[in-house]
Amino acid sequence: MAEETEVCFGILGCAQISIKFCKAIRKAPNAKVIAIGSRSLEKATSFASEQGLPEAVSVYGSYEAVLENDEVDAVYIPLPTALHVTWAVKAAEKGKHVLLEKPVAMNVAELDQILEACEVNGVQFMDGSMWLHHPRTVKVKEALSDEQRFGQLKWIHSCMTYNPGPEFLKNSIRMKPDLDGLGALGDIGWYSIQAILWSVNYQLPKSVLAFPKATLNQDNVIISCGSSLHWEDGKSATFHCSFLTYLTFDVTILGTKGSLRLHDLTLPFEESFGYGTFSESSEIDYGKIEQGMWCPKPNQHVVETEFSQDVWMVKEFADLVGKVKRLEMKPEKKWCVVSRKTQLVLDAVKESIQRGYESVEIVME
Amino acid sequence: MAEETEVCFGILGCAQISIKFCKAIRKAPNAKVIAIGSRSLEKATSFASEQGLPEAVSVYGSYEAVLENDEVDAVYIPLPTALHVTWAVKAAEKGKHVLLEKPVAMNVAELDQILEACEVNGVQFMDGSMWLHHPRTVKVKEALSDEQRFGQLKWIHSCMTYNPGPEFLKNSIRMKPDLDGLGALGDIGWYSIQAILWSVNYQLPKSVLAFPKATLNQDNVIISCGSSLHWEDGKSATFHCSFLTYLTFDVTILGTKGSLRLHDLTLPFEESFGYGTFSESSEIDYGKIEQGMWCPKPNQHVVETEFSQDVWMVKEFADLVGKVKRLEMKPEKKWCVVSRKTQLVLDAVKESIQRGYESVEIVME
Repeated sequence: MAEETEVCFGILGCAQISIKFCKAIRKAPNAKVIAIGSRSLEKATSFASEQGLPEAVSVYGSYEAVLENDEVDAVYIPLPTALHVTWAVKAAEKGKHVLLEKPVAMNVAELDQILEACEVNGVQFMDGSMWLHHPRTVKVKEALSDEQRFGQLKWIHSCMTYNPGPEFLKNSIRMKPDLDGLGALGDIGWYSIQAILWSVNYQLPKSVLAFPKATLNQDNVIISCGSSLHWEDGKSATFHCSFLTYLTFDVTILGTKGSLRLHDLTLPFEESFGYGTFSESSEIDYGKIEQGMWCPKPNQHVVETEFSQDVWMVKEFADLVGKVKRLEMKPEKKWCVVSRKTQLVLDAVKESIQRGYESVEIVME
Repeated sequence: MAEETEVCFGILGCAQISIKFCKAIRKAPNAKVIAIGSRSLEKATSFASEQGLPEAVSVYGSYEAVLENDEVDAVYIPLPTALHVTWAVKAAEKGKHVLLEKPVAMNVAELDQILEACEVNGVQFMDGSMWLHHPRTVKVKEALSDEQRFGQLKWIHSCMTYNPGPEFLKNSIRMKPDLDGLGALGDIGWYSIQAILWSVNYQLPKSVLAFPKATLNQDNVIISCGSSLHWEDGKSATFHCSFLTYLTFDVTILGTKGSLRLHDLTLPFEESFGYGTFSESSEIDYGKIEQGMWCPKPNQHVVETEFSQDVWMVKEFADLVGKVKRLEMKPEKKWCVVSRKTQLVLDAVKESIQRGYESVEIVME
């Protein structure tokens, strides 16, 4: 009875990302979709049909109905950010494990409500940042932790941008203060902040200072912004996120002895070819310098992967849920901490912009 | 009489970079070294012998003696920055054309003395930024100017670092306020600022704001710093320069439709193999997307080059000097403008740091 080991997912909402999620879940060995809900039954029905979901999948004209379904173990919530707190809390209260799209909340206070509901109800929480689950990420971390080759981390830069065009900037929910009200900062700045925190093993910076002259729309939603981040030990980082330029998912991490670069952090170029790459340089390779070359070209590392990163994420989440269901362990708190620290820094950057580009101290409460 | 077309150089000082310059000048078809001066005759003599300079080259125990040599058309000045104003002005007053290492001066006021002396005495001025003369630079500019592929420039990031180690940080002239008093900002931040200005056709930013918490030594010389730069039309740029991390010469330029990246701006990886590379992406290539690849990998462009960039610089400078000598044209002012704008922005970043990270307006006087 293979199905007994499968975690049963309900999906709240038929967003574009739900299509990707359905495809991922089909490839994950330990999860399946059994319910989908939309505010419109028609929309949910056509989504189920377009995605070729089995007839057995329950289709609902409300999110509540998904939560009422006792067969549903876990929900995937790709709703607009402003709705997260309501639906994630309701889901947790119904005993559903929560896989929540990023940005997880409008601010850390809302996220804390979600995390508390998950804690109280003993359900697993995870945000939808897929790149954290790619095997490449593990390998980059290994390279980063290699004191001999990389030395001590001193500086990080990340740049996340894409240019969805004027129609998006005018009408997308990502530009509406009452929907995805964090704009480009929430949508892609989230990844930059997370990558920076991940690089330093989630040690929070002491302060952040947004770059002057962020671009906001008439509703004060961020179209383009950036910030520097500062740690007490002298490490620093900068990031830039924008809806105004060609797509860029760069992370550069500099150590005293080496450097690491990815240009496709959140969406690996070779995703569908079963591998991911990153580049690495180290002063140790000076010994290999060819005649006349001032320094060796960076090494290209190739990391093979059985699944794409969205599948890895579903698999990891479903593994944790399965263990909680079988009473083998309590929910893994790590993913709460990762999301919360990311949101804390994101909030501080937003505050720095709102306060006219003042420095904002980060306080871990 | 091929030699009549050669520009005769005198070198002031036996710095490490003078070795590179001697090698470059040997390969340049229109220049030769005829004199070298050091504060110590012994040093100059052993430099000439170690570099295999011909016997005919005059070797002097002072810089003045080089300037007194009537055969010398032009001088190369790699002295510590604080000495530039004295020796560049003296050289110009002696009618010598001036190829001046970067950073060109301690501040723009000093540079203006140099540029005025060059103007008054009708001599050519150029700073020693070699990368500007590499054929690759021309090709990157073409890509940048391709409205169809690149769109409109919105954002630039540059990172220039190397880690010369504790002995350097303690004793190098680049760490002494009365010698190369601009530290890492002058040594490598210079390139970042120049690359940013070059990208925008030398349009000056309206303001700069240094990143908080720059690292300074006990004499207030900059070991590590960075800044954001802001233009009135909404363009912005950031850069980071440091003597604390592994060598990195990155420039990333983002347009609305495309992106351009170099990881070896000032010292091309393939320098000695007769080519240089850069990477370029454009949304136009979406049409070429392979099944399942979210976007095409960046295109690697290869630019062949007859000479290395130091040779190109010498050749271009000597070409200009030759034309002035033959009364075919007046000194080319472009290179004065390039240096002066770079120094102006550099001064503003330094001022922002000194004023406790306040925003500094750039005023072109």
